[in-house]
Amino acid sequence: MNIREATNEDFDQIWPIFHEIATAGETYAYPRDITKEHARQVWMDTPRKTFVLEEHGQILGTYYLKTNHPGPGDHVCNCGYMVSSTARGRGLATAMCQHSQTIARQLGYKAMQFNFVASSNQSAVRLWTKHGFATVGTLPRAFHHPTLGYIDALVMYKWLET
Amino acid sequence: MNIREATNEDFDQIWPIFHEIATAGETYAYPRDITKEHARQVWMDTPRKTFVLEEHGQILGTYYLKTNHPGPGDHVCNCGYMVSSTARGRGLATAMCQHSQTIARQLGYKAMQFNFVASSNQSAVRLWTKHGFATVGTLPRAFHHPTLGYIDALVMYKWLET
Repeated sequence: MNIREATNEDFDQIWPIFHEIATAGETYAYPRDITKEHARQVWMDTPRKTFVLEEHGQILGTYYLKTNHPGPGDHVCNCGYMVSSTARGRGLATAMCQHSQTIARQLGYKAMQFNFVASSNQSAVRLWTKHGFATVGTLPRAFHHPTLGYIDALVMYKWLET
Repeated sequence: MNIREATNEDFDQIWPIFHEIATAGETYAYPRDITKEHARQVWMDTPRKTFVLEEHGQILGTYYLKTNHPGPGDHVCNCGYMVSSTARGRGLATAMCQHSQTIARQLGYKAMQFNFVASSNQSAVRLWTKHGFATVGTLPRAFHHPTLGYIDALVMYKWLET
């Protein structure tokens, strides 16, 4: 298992992972009918850095890292992680979360924030909590889940400096 | 006092207000050295709508409205308000906040969220609270204030439907 910065060519392998997760509409705030080009823009072009997790040349996971707010907020970064449905339960999200914190510290960020975690996504909430993220906000009915309706979204946050 | 949608030509009057507030670095998450063209992009181009508050042909305040998160979050909007330092204490922020809620309902939004309110900005916190916004999150030390250092930022939220 290897985590490295993504290249433009990687997006052909990232897109099926992204597409499956966006289409489901259960975890990420992307349009469910997002196009490949729009996805490339939000996942590859807009972030400060994008990484892939690969095994035997196959991309199984990916994450981006970006500054959450400019100016007075630019010491706080934001990340998003995606794991292929074929590779869940193997600790890939954990590996990427730890990797992203190392990168964030290297880039000089002091904190990491997740802006919009669906409260129904209990495995993610459990995982981030285990990795030191606190739930610092609850956005009432801010996430429109395809089967659960309007559910709360959580804001999670971790100060990275020791 | 009249609130109307902004035109491109209005930006020459918006810019001094924006510039003063961004340069101070005490309330908004914009780079303190933001250029006029970058400011135009974030205030006029990126938002869904931008409004100005004018009196006798002079712009005294402005606000934007945009979708806070796409897809499963696209029923929640985000607004930002700016009032000229020459016109503070006259209820202009209140007028714009009320106007923005009306527009938000017209556009079909169900809630409004402020993502990054400096906790030191007590007049804003008091005002939004008075207008029905709840503090639903506290981001520890997420706002780097020029004189106060790292202070908390607040997430404020209001469900608009009655």
